[in-house]
Amino acid sequence: MTRSQRIVSTRTATIATIADEVGVSLTTVSKVLNGRSDVAPETRAKVEASLERHRYRRRVKRQPTAVEQIDLVFHELDSGWATEIIRGVEAVTSTAKVDLVFSQMGGRHRPSQQWLERVLLRRPLGVLLVLCQLTEAQRQQLQRRSIPLVVIDTDSATSAAVPTVGSNNWNGGLLATRHLLELGHRRIACISGPEDVLCSRARAAGFRFAHDEAGIPVDPALVRYGMFSTHAGYQHGMELLNRPDRPSAIFAGSDMQAIGVLRAARQLGLDVPADLSVIGYDDLPMATWIGPALTTVNQPLRDMAGTATQMLLDLARGAELSTSRIDLVTELVVRESTAPPRHRD
Amino acid sequence: MTRSQRIVSTRTATIATIADEVGVSLTTVSKVLNGRSDVAPETRAKVEASLERHRYRRRVKRQPTAVEQIDLVFHELDSGWATEIIRGVEAVTSTAKVDLVFSQMGGRHRPSQQWLERVLLRRPLGVLLVLCQLTEAQRQQLQRRSIPLVVIDTDSATSAAVPTVGSNNWNGGLLATRHLLELGHRRIACISGPEDVLCSRARAAGFRFAHDEAGIPVDPALVRYGMFSTHAGYQHGMELLNRPDRPSAIFAGSDMQAIGVLRAARQLGLDVPADLSVIGYDDLPMATWIGPALTTVNQPLRDMAGTATQMLLDLARGAELSTSRIDLVTELVVRESTAPPRHRD
Repeated sequence: MTRSQRIVSTRTATIATIADEVGVSLTTVSKVLNGRSDVAPETRAKVEASLERHRYRRRVKRQPTAVEQIDLVFHELDSGWATEIIRGVEAVTSTAKVDLVFSQMGGRHRPSQQWLERVLLRRPLGVLLVLCQLTEAQRQQLQRRSIPLVVIDTDSATSAAVPTVGSNNWNGGLLATRHLLELGHRRIACISGPEDVLCSRARAAGFRFAHDEAGIPVDPALVRYGMFSTHAGYQHGMELLNRPDRPSAIFAGSDMQAIGVLRAARQLGLDVPADLSVIGYDDLPMATWIGPALTTVNQPLRDMAGTATQMLLDLARGAELSTSRIDLVTELVVRESTAPPRHRD
Repeated sequence: MTRSQRIVSTRTATIATIADEVGVSLTTVSKVLNGRSDVAPETRAKVEASLERHRYRRRVKRQPTAVEQIDLVFHELDSGWATEIIRGVEAVTSTAKVDLVFSQMGGRHRPSQQWLERVLLRRPLGVLLVLCQLTEAQRQQLQRRSIPLVVIDTDSATSAAVPTVGSNNWNGGLLATRHLLELGHRRIACISGPEDVLCSRARAAGFRFAHDEAGIPVDPALVRYGMFSTHAGYQHGMELLNRPDRPSAIFAGSDMQAIGVLRAARQLGLDVPADLSVIGYDDLPMATWIGPALTTVNQPLRDMAGTATQMLLDLARGAELSTSRIDLVTELVVRESTAPPRHRD
């Protein structure tokens, strides 16, 4: 009942139902709902279990003067990729006069319970997760407090109950690979992102599909998964390019990886694109500036972030989403880093 | 008196003094202090003026369960520079269990009054400004509510009352220019940042000092100011390199600018470093990866951000700062983009 919210019971269960069932005071149930720390862990667990049994959902009415915030949570803040996402989110939140609370999980794909407890205390309009995911229990804790959740670029098969915004990664992999095959490349390597991230596997699947379509076999030794970082691109690039049967083209999992591959090529005295074609992924602003300018798959990161933020604000206002899964279109942008191979097979 | 704060009068003036003087209720004064919108503008102005006359300062006591936040405000979110700052801030806030509220001003160097009103409503532990500055009136509004302010890389002669963390820009300009002079360059261009930003002028001053020290004149046509962006570096680079008396070295205002200069050189068929030496500024992670790897001035951005955040948290706890101006050390990092000029003068 604190701050600018009023608790209204919904469905059949009220706070009183829960308090009766567990044998605690109304205040205790309220404290648990508000994420207060002054409740014994066992009591908290009992109350949470009872809330779940009754499918309790708090309905929230906000006063017009309330401070409205959304939480933006990154698994990691790295490179221009994250910057594009933040810009896309910020454009929508600043127009909507909603504050943006920023967190990053230091590379972990699951936010800590400590983070969640701070969120419950603060009660934002909603939570936006980027490349990370909550446990089912954490998701339910948010749901019971009517704090909606939207995921950008989901890391794996997310519960269908969670709205997600991504881009068509399979299509991105397909377009990049078709371009290289059409240029005449026959030994093409694919360095995708981390294998536990769905988008990485979708791109690799597009890569394989393009080969199947052209009737050209994929050498499994040339398909790799790695971090999205420049360093990972450099390491995989060195390994691939030091092979006696090195590929004539590399499709990287990010522009940052591609920059690492370019560094490996320079170090080995290989000219891009004469000796090696390189395709990136993302189309960060940097891709047009580096030498050679990067052929890459455009992922509309700012649009993805803006769309996800708008979905979250709509959910917070109690709107029903017409669709809970949106994949934006990916496009190939051809620049200077791809060309026909020097010797055709 | 709402949320988790308690208002305690300090000095001689109390809320009652102010209310009496202006002829309004205690509630109205309290509403103004809390940034509430339901106060007529003229009344608000009178109350603010009275608060200022009495040098009213609110003393704040926070309950242990309060949600603690700091505001991080960028003039613009661009490139890896901002990412490094955010990482530095986030490392300190997440350890301190303080939430980070993020805003960017779309390139303006003065946050809007609308932004300030949201801050007054929300009452963060403090405000951290990056490359932007408040008006004196805005600064006083924060001060009256005991919301401390720290500035990273101040944009111009900031009031000495505002603690700032920067780096030794003059020294950075000096080190970069000395390096080029020692390599034998005699026509050296300097593209600094925007001229209204203090750090840009400090670096250009270091550039001039190094020339004076070596008894070598500076051609004023080769000293320029521009945005920190890649595009500005490209444009200035094209102009400088298309001159009949083109420089044999360019000292850029940021790594992003330097990447733009590298692109201009490539486009004009100039080899870096054989035909042109290029030095960047910042030492972003990207500087080691691009081709050629960038000689640059290391600015300890994460440390600057972390130091500023710690100062802010100390101030919020009521600590006295031992010093209110900190400049961290800059260092030259020599990589592949600088070499002796092809023909010595």
